Amino acid sequence: MKSIGAKTIVYPTPVFIVGTYDEKGVPNGMAVAWGGICCSDPPCIAVSLREATYTYGNIRKRKAFTVSVPSEKYVKEADYFGIVSGRTVNKFEATGLTPVRSELVDAPYVGEFPLVLECSLIKTVEIGLHTQFIGKIEDVKADEDIVGEGGMPDIEKAAPLLFAPDSCDYWKTGAFAAKAFSIGKKIEGT
Amino acid sequence: MKSIGAKTIVYPTPVFIVGTYDEKGVPNGMAVAWGGICCSDPPCIAVSLREATYTYGNIRKRKAFTVSVPSEKYVKEADYFGIVSGRTVNKFEATGLTPVRSELVDAPYVGEFPLVLECSLIKTVEIGLHTQFIGKIEDVKADEDIVGEGGMPDIEKAAPLLFAPDSCDYWKTGAFAAKAFSIGKKIEGT
Repeated sequence: MKSIGAKTIVYPTPVFIVGTYDEKGVPNGMAVAWGGICCSDPPCIAVSLREATYTYGNIRKRKAFTVSVPSEKYVKEADYFGIVSGRTVNKFEATGLTPVRSELVDAPYVGEFPLVLECSLIKTVEIGLHTQFIGKIEDVKADEDIVGEGGMPDIEKAAPLLFAPDSCDYWKTGAFAAKAFSIGKKIEGT
Repeated sequence: MKSIGAKTIVYPTPVFIVGTYDEKGVPNGMAVAWGGICCSDPPCIAVSLREATYTYGNIRKRKAFTVSVPSEKYVKEADYFGIVSGRTVNKFEATGLTPVRSELVDAPYVGEFPLVLECSLIKTVEIGLHTQFIGKIEDVKADEDIVGEGGMPDIEKAAPLLFAPDSCDYWKTGAFAAKAFSIGKKIEGT
C-alpha cells in the first residue's frame, strides 16, 4: 500500500445541492460533497460547510435546509452550484432551475432534480474548517418518473452522480452489483 | 413530486468497512453506509453506528478506526461484514481477508481493499439510534494498482461500490461524467 497522506479522499462522495433561503428570502443552492446519512431514528443527514459560504449563514438563520440530488443530466448545473456564490448571483435564475418552496421546512429545493430531502436543523457540530449541520429528514420527495414498483425511488432511474475528491471529477452510477444482506450469506458463518 | 416519507434515502451512500480491534485484540470489520467526509482541515471522516454493534464498543475503547473501501469484486465479502457480528465470529478469518495492523492508529484495515483511511477518534456525537464517530484521517493508503499518474488514487481502478438504502442493493461506479469546477463554467455568471 502506498501512503497518500492525510487527505480527504474516499469513494464515493455524494453530489448534494443544499438549498436555503437568505435573509431576504432569495433561494440559494450550493454543491456539497462532504455529507451523508448519519442516523436512522430520527432519520438524519449531515452536510459540512465552511463558515465562509453563503449557505452557512442561511442555515444558521433559517434552521433548515434541503438536499436535492441531481441526476447525471444536470452535471453542468450541479457543478455551477459549486463554483459561484449566492452572495453575488441568484444561481436558480442563472441555471434556469426552479426553486420550489418546501411546505415542511423554511428552505427551497430544486424542482427538476429527482430526489429531495427536506430537513430541519437539529444539531451543529464544530469540527475545524468545516462545520457540520445535522438535519432531521422531515420528508423525502421523489420525481414520479423515478418511483418504481412498491412506490419507492429507483437509483437507476435517479442516475445520481458521485464526486471523486482527489481528481475533482464527477462519475455516473453504474450497473447493479448485488443484493445487500443476501450475497454475503454465501460465506460460511452467517 | 411524490412524498416518500421521513426516511433515510439518499444517493449515493458509501460502502465502508470500519476496522477495529476488540478488547482482546481480535480484528473486526463492519459494513457502514451512514458516513462520509465531514471536514477538510483537519481532514476528517464520520461514521455512524448503533450502540448495539460490536464496533461501537471497540471504537469507544480504542479511540481509533479505519475505513477500508472495497472494490466491486469484493461485494460478497463487504456484504458479509454487514450481516454477522464480530461478537460471534472473526469476520477476517471467515472471509479469508487480511487484517493489517495500522502503524498509525490502534486499528486494523483490510489488506486486499484498494483504498484505506486510518483514523483517530476526535469527536463523538450522540444523535439518536446512531452515534456518530468523527475520525481525524491520519493517512490514506492506496493499493499500488489503483495509483494513477501524479501518484494519486484512481476511482475507476478502485471500482468502489455504492449502496442504495431503499432497495438495499449495491451498485457499481459507472463512467466518467465531467470535470468538476469546470463544466459549470459553461453557464453564464461564473
